[in-house]
Amino acid sequence: MQSHATEEQIRAVCDRIEALGFKAHPIPGAVRTAIGITGNTGAVDIGSLESMAGVGECIPVSKPYKLVSRDIKEENTVVRIPTPSGEVTFGGAAVAMVAGPCAIESREQAFTVAEQVKAAGARLFRGGAYKPRTSPYSFQGMGEPGLKILAEVRDKFGMGIVTEAIDNESLELVEKYADVIQIGARNMQNFSLLKVAGRSRKPVLLKRGMSATLDEFLMAAEYIMSEGNYNVILCERGVRTFSDHTRNTLDLSMIPAVQRRSHLPIVVDPSHGTGRRAKVLPLSRAAVAVGADGLLVEVHHDPDRALSDGMQSILPEEFAALTEECRQIAAVLHRTLN
Amino acid sequence: MQSHATEEQIRAVCDRIEALGFKAHPIPGAVRTAIGITGNTGAVDIGSLESMAGVGECIPVSKPYKLVSRDIKEENTVVRIPTPSGEVTFGGAAVAMVAGPCAIESREQAFTVAEQVKAAGARLFRGGAYKPRTSPYSFQGMGEPGLKILAEVRDKFGMGIVTEAIDNESLELVEKYADVIQIGARNMQNFSLLKVAGRSRKPVLLKRGMSATLDEFLMAAEYIMSEGNYNVILCERGVRTFSDHTRNTLDLSMIPAVQRRSHLPIVVDPSHGTGRRAKVLPLSRAAVAVGADGLLVEVHHDPDRALSDGMQSILPEEFAALTEECRQIAAVLHRTLN
Amino acid sequence: MQSHATEEQIRAVCDRIEALGFKAHPIPGAVRTAIGITGNTGAVDIGSLESMAGVGECIPVSKPYKLVSRDIKEENTVVRIPTPSGEVTFGGAAVAMVAGPCAIESREQAFTVAEQVKAAGARLFRGGAYKPRTSPYSFQGMGEPGLKILAEVRDKFGMGIVTEAIDNESLELVEKYADVIQIGARNMQNFSLLKVAGRSRKPVLLKRGMSATLDEFLMAAEYIMSEGNYNVILCERGVRTFSDHTRNTLDLSMIPAVQRRSHLPIVVDPSHGTGRRAKVLPLSRAAVAVGADGLLVEVHHDPDRALSDGMQSILPEEFAALTEECRQIAAVLHRTLN
Amino acid sequence: MQSHATEEQIRAVCDRIEALGFKAHPIPGAVRTAIGITGNTGAVDIGSLESMAGVGECIPVSKPYKLVSRDIKEENTVVRIPTPSGEVTFGGAAVAMVAGPCAIESREQAFTVAEQVKAAGARLFRGGAYKPRTSPYSFQGMGEPGLKILAEVRDKFGMGIVTEAIDNESLELVEKYADVIQIGARNMQNFSLLKVAGRSRKPVLLKRGMSATLDEFLMAAEYIMSEGNYNVILCERGVRTFSDHTRNTLDLSMIPAVQRRSHLPIVVDPSHGTGRRAKVLPLSRAAVAVGADGLLVEVHHDPDRALSDGMQSILPEEFAALTEECRQIAAVLHRTLN
Repeated sequence: MQSHATEEQIRAVCDRIEALGFKAHPIPGAVRTAIGITGNTGAVDIGSLESMAGVGECIPVSKPYKLVSRDIKEENTVVRIPTPSGEVTFGGAAVAMVAGPCAIESREQAFTVAEQVKAAGARLFRGGAYKPRTSPYSFQGMGEPGLKILAEVRDKFGMGIVTEAIDNESLELVEKYADVIQIGARNMQNFSLLKVAGRSRKPVLLKRGMSATLDEFLMAAEYIMSEGNYNVILCERGVRTFSDHTRNTLDLSMIPAVQRRSHLPIVVDPSHGTGRRAKVLPLSRAAVAVGADGLLVEVHHDPDRALSDGMQSILPEEFAALTEECRQIAAVLHRTLN
Repeated sequence: MQSHATEEQIRAVCDRIEALGFKAHPIPGAVRTAIGITGNTGAVDIGSLESMAGVGECIPVSKPYKLVSRDIKEENTVVRIPTPSGEVTFGGAAVAMVAGPCAIESREQAFTVAEQVKAAGARLFRGGAYKPRTSPYSFQGMGEPGLKILAEVRDKFGMGIVTEAIDNESLELVEKYADVIQIGARNMQNFSLLKVAGRSRKPVLLKRGMSATLDEFLMAAEYIMSEGNYNVILCERGVRTFSDHTRNTLDLSMIPAVQRRSHLPIVVDPSHGTGRRAKVLPLSRAAVAVGADGLLVEVHHDPDRALSDGMQSILPEEFAALTEECRQIAAVLHRTLN
Repeated sequence: MQSHATEEQIRAVCDRIEALGFKAHPIPGAVRTAIGITGNTGAVDIGSLESMAGVGECIPVSKPYKLVSRDIKEENTVVRIPTPSGEVTFGGAAVAMVAGPCAIESREQAFTVAEQVKAAGARLFRGGAYKPRTSPYSFQGMGEPGLKILAEVRDKFGMGIVTEAIDNESLELVEKYADVIQIGARNMQNFSLLKVAGRSRKPVLLKRGMSATLDEFLMAAEYIMSEGNYNVILCERGVRTFSDHTRNTLDLSMIPAVQRRSHLPIVVDPSHGTGRRAKVLPLSRAAVAVGADGLLVEVHHDPDRALSDGMQSILPEEFAALTEECRQIAAVLHRTLN
Repeated sequence: MQSHATEEQIRAVCDRIEALGFKAHPIPGAVRTAIGITGNTGAVDIGSLESMAGVGECIPVSKPYKLVSRDIKEENTVVRIPTPSGEVTFGGAAVAMVAGPCAIESREQAFTVAEQVKAAGARLFRGGAYKPRTSPYSFQGMGEPGLKILAEVRDKFGMGIVTEAIDNESLELVEKYADVIQIGARNMQNFSLLKVAGRSRKPVLLKRGMSATLDEFLMAAEYIMSEGNYNVILCERGVRTFSDHTRNTLDLSMIPAVQRRSHLPIVVDPSHGTGRRAKVLPLSRAAVAVGADGLLVEVHHDPDRALSDGMQSILPEEFAALTEECRQIAAVLHRTLN
């Protein structure tokens, strides 16, 4: 309440709170009176209160998410991805490496990259068949033929497949061919798509939106979980800020922040997170050091000719070196790579 | 190129540019050599160049959009909305007022608000039947029954209807019942939805994404136009910044910026743009003063009990006062309200 | 408190609060217990609490400023600037126009611009003698000779002078020659300089820092007022965001936000706020429409040859047109220009 | 140039460029003509060009800094701090640990913390005698008596001293008592202070401003170097973004970005960078992993009673654990701690 709020105004606000079905707790202070609200099961719509006479400000204090919260489930969720060559986990002792090209361009390209990232130790393969591109005139991905190539990669190299769905139609196909359904940053608040993903039985890798807060990120995961799919892997991939020396500003503090609030695993995408090839290696090391449960790295054997995002893809041999350095850093945290 | 780049490195970069099918223009300077690239019809993927030896930085200079650009069409696009009580235009001499509740909650609520905003002069009615909400536990809109109420509002009050579609399914229904299809900020880069909207014959009101640049905003419109729908109305509704005294930071400079680059009309949503009832009136005046082609204002006869966004809705009588002030400001710019 | 906090943990937190000299108000809720803190005269350092066992989050609710607040002084402060041609006010019914070049370059330049902006109706002249420039190799201002030229402008044209001080030394000189001491955005949290300005008897125009929140902006004014100088004029000049179509993002919602919390006048600088000549006019109109108490506009008779910020300076004839449009918009708000 | 620019307009722009003393390089493209500018020794003020008829946009491509650049000096600068117990370096093979309380509060407090951080291996001690605080009513530091305590810490524990100067007066004293002069984030563009620091013979630790770009950060260092002081240590301490789960968003990509452009060493402040005690350890590990040349960590033996920033200070035993983990991560990068 404002400092000059009258007794009547305070009482009116309390009455309104009670009328809304909540409990009001007026706390008189030296200068002004605060009023606590409890009894709410979700968020209170504060509009009706903030505009009342004498009210200074309304400040929400309880968190709106439930299923994603450590309040509900204290121990870490371990998401298990069965692959032809054994299970890969997110959220356990091992740090999961997911590698592959930004977009699937051809069987030859996919096989070449898969062979090399597998040799470096990766057991999960990434690559987009559906590409959300800023321009309608840019390469939009191969679609279902790309998914079929990914399925061939799984068969031939024994790797699990992570690939993005961009709408309800593509999600159905991705679910059929892949092991993990990726929801991209631009779709983090495509609630319609999140609900469909929540009804899938495949794990979902959810990327943080370009300007999503911690709460919004967790609420997006809550959308998926509230439909019954509890296998959600979160992914920090950089946010949009004024800072212009990288494509996005990788926010590594998100990892311990998520781990404090939620039981879900969280991985880092240093490729989109920086947008610059030369920064992928140092920020991958940093991501493992901060405690991430995995990395999502763009690798291309010929990045200069990549149909998308070549600028941020590293070479297979660079990926092998990255894996080795990350393995050593993981060891400092008593973790392995898988 | 870097200042110590060798002749060979410069030549190699030029060769690569030519190999990619473009034309290279080396320009030697006092300290370093710059190389211009022309002949590209779209954006050049600069990854292949930036990582070459001797290269300092790659800087794109041409704009990737075409159909939205004033380079293609110099005069303003006027989007015409036929309503039972005559045509309303966006982009002409008149400033269009769109008013109504955030969400359709009942026939009674919709009729009450519609009657009052109509009396204040509005000829377009807004109200959501599908609501993208951060929490899965918040009211998600009435769906098709809400659209039917909107259709009744059109019949009864002679107003045109503006309402949001959130996925391909709802878009089909919105197209059937409404006069303008709204695409919300969270879906500005839901390219799948934009393409479907681009195949509609109804005008599309496209809101700026929460962290969209001018270029991305125009490219999203380009997605719609590239599918054949040229009736696109842009909408500034605030962006996300560190600034915490309003829900979003309304970026009114976007209006002259869009008007310089594009022929499309642009309106302002001061309700989402500020998130605070007390700021809707001053920022509505400012929006008209800066040159916006219309306003999208949330009005509710009982905002304290609104099921969503009551905090930013104004009362019908406040809307009437707002309309009157905006009319006077429009007159200073030799415009009318419609 | 966290939802699984024990009674002991809650009691321990209350004890700590009391030990710190405050009063603790535990409020048990359905899911968790909140604890209100009162009795504090300033901000509580919440570090000691947030790290205690069972604590979920600490949220400050009372505002740390006093003298700038409407809680202390309900009516508007009117800052009065005596000029040779009569008093100019900030915060009263009239909107004050301050115009002039970014930097004082020569007597001839200053006189030429002063004559023309005076003819357009401005009674306050701005122009920098000390220029904070990003590069040490850019023109840094004329220094005291520039101030002397400003004093001549006052004598010759009867205008009041607004000019920037960048450190304690220049502040002493600015105080001697000028009518209003400007503190630039980069120095908004140069607390040492603010204190010195607070001991001056000349009014201070304080620009918002590039990434300052409302609270920080008001606290900077509080620094000046706490030293005894109550004549503070605030100035919104755009903030730094991801948005790249203007140099800064002009945050016009700051004007009603300041006016709600504080009794101090607030003006707008549309020149720095946009950084683009073509946007100065529309955003000046918007600033007056939103309710600003004045405008600070860069005007140069030959902007293409200006030694700094020519890109955002308008021509004298453009300023005359701007003044006329702003006068009409001010009239809609029942205000005049002065 | 715009796509419909005429030959005359192109020629006029070239003429203007030449008239400004530069060389113009028109490059005709498929759709539009670009014009390169060379021969400039500093930045071109693009205002005069951008407003000419037919001009589409002006894009600066060359960097305005010189002395900080790797173009001038290819090998790393190693800043050497002589301490009573031997030299500590920034920018060499060793990672430097700087630890101590946010503010010096008493001899007892300083000695207690110094003893413990020294035992953990730190050889540089930090602690503020001058504190820039948002509120004028917060503890502002002990001033010179605090500096004298720091000098005693040096004598008693053999540690080098790093402490902040906030204006010309305090800088003179800091120079007298300390080994490294710290310039805080709020003063990064206090150019007057930077110049004075540039005339000091003591090394300067320059913190990145809250919303400073890479270029602005390097230009601030250029101010110091241009006055003759080449011993500059840069410090990333988080930037201001919309992200609200930490006090600032630590931008670790700044470290490889600086290292690519500049020869200067760069350290990380994870305490201000996160503002949360629980995040200091994981982000310290990440900072060393990304390649930082040192850490600046706030340590307090009784953070709950600290007079400032207790919330982000860690305990001495936590610092010892942090040091040990960082040592192991440094080893992966073939570095030691010093």
